[in-house]
Amino acid sequence: MPFYPLNENNILDYLQQRPALKDFFPADAPVAIREVGDGNLNFVYIIENQDDPENAMVIKQALPYLRVLGESWPLTQERARYEAQALQEHNKYAPGLAPELYDFDDEMSTIAMEYLGKHAIMRKPMVAREKFPRFAEHISSFLARTLYFTSDYYLSGPEKKLLQAKFVNEELRKLQEDFVYTNPYKESEENNWNPLVDDEVQAVRADTALKLEIAAMKNSYMNHAEALIHADLHTGSIMLNQEDTRVIDPEFAFFGPMGYDIGAVLQNLVLNYLSHYGHTPDPEARADYQAWVLETIREIWNQFAAKFDALWAENARPDSELMPLGYWDYPDGQEAFAAYRQRTIQHILEETAGHGGVKFLRRMMGVVSVWDISSIEDPAKRAVAERAAIHIGKRWLMERKAISSIDDLIGIVQEETKDIVV
Amino acid sequence: MPFYPLNENNILDYLQQRPALKDFFPADAPVAIREVGDGNLNFVYIIENQDDPENAMVIKQALPYLRVLGESWPLTQERARYEAQALQEHNKYAPGLAPELYDFDDEMSTIAMEYLGKHAIMRKPMVAREKFPRFAEHISSFLARTLYFTSDYYLSGPEKKLLQAKFVNEELRKLQEDFVYTNPYKESEENNWNPLVDDEVQAVRADTALKLEIAAMKNSYMNHAEALIHADLHTGSIMLNQEDTRVIDPEFAFFGPMGYDIGAVLQNLVLNYLSHYGHTPDPEARADYQAWVLETIREIWNQFAAKFDALWAENARPDSELMPLGYWDYPDGQEAFAAYRQRTIQHILEETAGHGGVKFLRRMMGVVSVWDISSIEDPAKRAVAERAAIHIGKRWLMERKAISSIDDLIGIVQEETKDIVV
Repeated sequence: MPFYPLNENNILDYLQQRPALKDFFPADAPVAIREVGDGNLNFVYIIENQDDPENAMVIKQALPYLRVLGESWPLTQERARYEAQALQEHNKYAPGLAPELYDFDDEMSTIAMEYLGKHAIMRKPMVAREKFPRFAEHISSFLARTLYFTSDYYLSGPEKKLLQAKFVNEELRKLQEDFVYTNPYKESEENNWNPLVDDEVQAVRADTALKLEIAAMKNSYMNHAEALIHADLHTGSIMLNQEDTRVIDPEFAFFGPMGYDIGAVLQNLVLNYLSHYGHTPDPEARADYQAWVLETIREIWNQFAAKFDALWAENARPDSELMPLGYWDYPDGQEAFAAYRQRTIQHILEETAGHGGVKFLRRMMGVVSVWDISSIEDPAKRAVAERAAIHIGKRWLMERKAISSIDDLIGIVQEETKDIVV
Repeated sequence: MPFYPLNENNILDYLQQRPALKDFFPADAPVAIREVGDGNLNFVYIIENQDDPENAMVIKQALPYLRVLGESWPLTQERARYEAQALQEHNKYAPGLAPELYDFDDEMSTIAMEYLGKHAIMRKPMVAREKFPRFAEHISSFLARTLYFTSDYYLSGPEKKLLQAKFVNEELRKLQEDFVYTNPYKESEENNWNPLVDDEVQAVRADTALKLEIAAMKNSYMNHAEALIHADLHTGSIMLNQEDTRVIDPEFAFFGPMGYDIGAVLQNLVLNYLSHYGHTPDPEARADYQAWVLETIREIWNQFAAKFDALWAENARPDSELMPLGYWDYPDGQEAFAAYRQRTIQHILEETAGHGGVKFLRRMMGVVSVWDISSIEDPAKRAVAERAAIHIGKRWLMERKAISSIDDLIGIVQEETKDIVV
């Protein structure tokens, strides 16, 4: 069957052609269809049985261009396959923390998956200061499990390489290479930034020491094939409520540095923290929510580190490639294995700081900001948050090799915001 | 055509079935066939026109098991494809420094290539103290050109990833993961070592600090996808004479750290240097040859570094991924670009020391030594060389982050051999 774009009129006929989907809705159910894609890349339909809202699914179709920039920016539809493959791995290793996958149609670049009708995209409620008490627990499990089980710390060398070979993903990786690690720091027409922080932006673009470290992180992003990373794990890729958390939209997935995913989560939380200088005029309400955000950051890292270490200690196999258990089979071997795990986790923290740091900068001077910040209407208030974000980003990046715990990264956030009066 | 093993009786018929090969020899030429494979993995036939020795070719066929260990060690025949693909890249970027490729037959796992009748495998003449005055010039060009042009310093992100996707090579990489970075440092039945250095070997296997660094280098080997490396570049993979140098046998090729290839060359030269404590009793002859070896090591690195820097400065493109030229387009940008090149080359030196260091150790206590050393008949004299090799290997590895030039690595060789009296 050749490719054609789905729409509200043809999508039910499409479902009838897919064995995994055709019996999803009762024959005479009154189904409602709506298109809700608010991302940059795809069209997303929710199909719902109006008699039974639990009976619903999401259909996501990748079109052959970048939605946000229109048909002038072509993109292959391979990304639907990468998303489907990543969802499979996420469901395998972190069941309940990603939407269930019902069907993948390679020719139509279409994925059918669980509808998360009781979940909200995390970014907006965080601007409204909603707290999510189980988020740190859930996201740290998602990170620890998806990253550990797709790394050489669990897999054998050949298993890892054969899985890696399914995630070439050269086009979407190129988008991040350009829009995270390159274009924001040079003249590039799609960049935009608040004129009130122009001094900071121009300083970044002319700061050789900083640009060498950005280049080092780009090299890590491109060539440190540590685990299957989500690679776009901002708060717009997380849907949650008070009880449940799901990570969505893994079409950027490839084998890269674990710190990129963790850094994305932590850095997006800090951007939200900063956004409340604009969104939350009441100092008490602001301080209360900001304290929750920082505590969540601390918990995410500390729980990640503990879970990752425990998963590794419990699941490492005789043929796990880094390192096979027999490598530690000598009198001091168990202490050595523990030291190896701790050294690795410390390196993940360093890369978390480095990638997170770069991502602060790109959000302030590249093609896309985040809604937390861009929705601050007063440019002067927005500049307060943006200036702090640039300072924090620089320091996370430049000081990453000296960081010994998450408290150091949180300390930088506190230092760079302690004099802010709005 | 299904696979069948070639032999002296059927190989001429085989040539007739290959369009690229059938007219290679004149119809009535008296051709001689001999099998000369002395490696671990393959059968190699030389086919020669006895009336015209310039009219000759090599046919190399991969069989479905590891030759050195017999049919009990199965290996897929994919390695012939990896070798053919790597030879293509080597001929593209370093023409004249690898054998010319005539034909590749995927079904038969067979490669036809230039016969190097005037070249010798480097290992043996080096034991006989033959000097090769152009070797440093040639091998440094091979390294600089094959590594630069297959890296992100030249290619765009997508170009690199699509090339990389052709070199999954999970089986041969696993061999090196096991036999270079794992098994020698633990109990493993195939290991063998000189009982006279048993104290050193046992100390390595129980040295946690050292084993953590070996694990770090294994991680680099596996996951630092820097460039298309040869991945088996010892002096048994180099054929040369006084005028000409060719790198052969790239079936292990994959995208890994540049320092692995450079470290292999330098470390094999040092092993040869050490072997003369056994092979060359005359102190003057020994000192003379050892001085040439050390000077060659210095020249290889220094010429590599200069050539790599110049290739990069001259060939970097607007879309080279690390970094696109526009990234350096600001007032201090040219100095920054030069600093980036130098920092990268310094990191290659660090990885050269690390990978080279591990490879010293594995040759002294793993499954295969090198002929330079193993051919020393007196175990006591062999132990002199082996003990020094272990000391040098440990120091290259452990001190790699403090090394600032090739002279530091050479200095370690000199320090660890200055008290040797044989």
